[in-house]
Amino acid sequence: MTINEDRTNPPSDTVIISIDAMGGDSGVEAIIGGMEMSAAINPDIKFLVHGDSAEIGALLAKKPELAARVEVLHADKVISMDEKPTRALRSGKGSSMWNAVDSVKQGEAAVTVSCGNTGALMAISMLQLRKLPGVKRPAIAVLWPSRNPSGFNVMLDMGADIKADPEDLLQYAIMGASYARNGLDVRRPRVGLLNIGTEDNKGRPELQEAAELIKTAQSDSDLEYIGFVEGSDLPADHVDIIVTDGFTGNVALKAAEGTARLVAEFMREAFTHSLMAKVSAALASGPLKRLKNRIDPRRSNGGVFLGLNGTVIKSHGGSDAVAFCAAIKLANTLAQNGFAEKLAARVASATAASKNTPIETDEA
Amino acid sequence: MTINEDRTNPPSDTVIISIDAMGGDSGVEAIIGGMEMSAAINPDIKFLVHGDSAEIGALLAKKPELAARVEVLHADKVISMDEKPTRALRSGKGSSMWNAVDSVKQGEAAVTVSCGNTGALMAISMLQLRKLPGVKRPAIAVLWPSRNPSGFNVMLDMGADIKADPEDLLQYAIMGASYARNGLDVRRPRVGLLNIGTEDNKGRPELQEAAELIKTAQSDSDLEYIGFVEGSDLPADHVDIIVTDGFTGNVALKAAEGTARLVAEFMREAFTHSLMAKVSAALASGPLKRLKNRIDPRRSNGGVFLGLNGTVIKSHGGSDAVAFCAAIKLANTLAQNGFAEKLAARVASATAASKNTPIETDEA
Repeated sequence: MTINEDRTNPPSDTVIISIDAMGGDSGVEAIIGGMEMSAAINPDIKFLVHGDSAEIGALLAKKPELAARVEVLHADKVISMDEKPTRALRSGKGSSMWNAVDSVKQGEAAVTVSCGNTGALMAISMLQLRKLPGVKRPAIAVLWPSRNPSGFNVMLDMGADIKADPEDLLQYAIMGASYARNGLDVRRPRVGLLNIGTEDNKGRPELQEAAELIKTAQSDSDLEYIGFVEGSDLPADHVDIIVTDGFTGNVALKAAEGTARLVAEFMREAFTHSLMAKVSAALASGPLKRLKNRIDPRRSNGGVFLGLNGTVIKSHGGSDAVAFCAAIKLANTLAQNGFAEKLAARVASATAASKNTPIETDEA
Repeated sequence: MTINEDRTNPPSDTVIISIDAMGGDSGVEAIIGGMEMSAAINPDIKFLVHGDSAEIGALLAKKPELAARVEVLHADKVISMDEKPTRALRSGKGSSMWNAVDSVKQGEAAVTVSCGNTGALMAISMLQLRKLPGVKRPAIAVLWPSRNPSGFNVMLDMGADIKADPEDLLQYAIMGASYARNGLDVRRPRVGLLNIGTEDNKGRPELQEAAELIKTAQSDSDLEYIGFVEGSDLPADHVDIIVTDGFTGNVALKAAEGTARLVAEFMREAFTHSLMAKVSAALASGPLKRLKNRIDPRRSNGGVFLGLNGTVIKSHGGSDAVAFCAAIKLANTLAQNGFAEKLAARVASATAASKNTPIETDEA
């Protein structure tokens, strides 16, 4: 472990990830645990860890292999879970979250990962990294378990903004497609607009307008618009990206999560309510474990902020080591694919297209 | 079985339910099957069945006990699942759906139940039964499995209208509370407004306005306002009624249903993917069956149209006999509790309260 050492010239294929070690509900130990799991399977990752250097140092002292790949940058302040975003902006400077985002801004790290307060993280990220030219509303994209080969669909916006006009929804489609290409390796992502029916005349007028915009942008943006999808299509295999405003997206995601949790609870009760049931559970432990793994929300952990000059990943506030490791894996995949640059190029290209100015873009 | 016989003077505690036997995806047989199951456990139910009398008659011929409690009213026309509501209004007269609603209008039946096209059923119901005085937007209320003692929460609106202003949301709260009292036997229902966070300042301005209106109406309307709830609270036990606009409600409900279906699918796969897994499934059949029953969507079948002069229940389009029986059970409960009259009194009282005119109401 080194503190504040020179951070220039990492080996070319090394990915440096900036970590906000504070502000999660499960404490620093879960963060360090996730880093350890991740480091064990990704030899090219290094970490810049922001937070209480004494606490982090004490934990790293027991993990020399991980410590060799970690640089700790002390931060005094922590932004709490209930801090208002406006207050976080005013007084957040010098906090672990602020500094973690700053590492991306300064080009010292490729991606930052934080378990902290979502609103504060978005506000600080917007202030420091700034929106990409042409982006009015950044979005948060999440993964949701699906029947697709990758095992996931992408949904956005999950609550960066409660409103979205048709142009925002078009931009979400383009940014979501770039994310699916680079995060899930889907070559030509299929985009659906979330609505209350699949017929063209359904829903709010702005959705019909957005549908027209996305349809028109299909070939330029290397995506396939498949039309309206419904809430029941969140896990569907005929769509890769589900586009909606942040209000609807947040409600849909939480409704789905709440249901998955309810079913898991009912399952636990069913297999423990009698001695016979407990014996059954022991005998069926193989299939039950397989099922649990498939619906484990920790596997799909990590909300990616899209539309900024740099990649920020929001890990679930209650992340344990397994969940945090999944968020780091996502950060690593996006960094290795040069996602930030490709996304910026895509957005620039779409902005230019809407002004009829041709711009060359890389595969993004 | 009698056709078109005189329908006056049923015994006083008999509940007559009007059934649209056509238009569901599973055919007339599922409808008759559901009626048979329901009749077997509810000796006070009688049915007015609208549809193809030859087809219905042939099925009833094999069920003499049920046939004795059924009156068949022939209807030539069927409104198809993809019929536009406007077209259903223009040319639906004489269809089984139209006539089923008419039976409630004429006072021949207490409630009508249909598996047909939701949009057409709402349009026909609004035209024939008319909105209650003071109601701008009727709503569809559904049950969702919850951790509450009744096993369910009420959610509305599930898609009667894509918009709702603060006054509509207040009315949904009042109507939903009346439904919970009469349908789920909850004395003083707890109402939550669906939002993307529980803090008072979260979400759209109209939600904050609606929150104020519902808070003020609490004591007059015999409900408890518990504040904002999130998508994850759909199955929560700290709320009985979840109020939202029809767009958000429809998406949330379908997201939850889609997730429950995905988990059930994963469960099936987990318990069939190997011989060992199949053996486990056989050994664990008790708990698995218990679990399946608890998340069986057929148990919570039945969307109730609120805000009209009469009670209409939309049964799921794909209802089998078990699901249709659940919708009839709901119809019977509401009829026995005099729900239509109590709801009308509640809405009248609330309308009067908003104009500062006192009206006496029954316990509704």
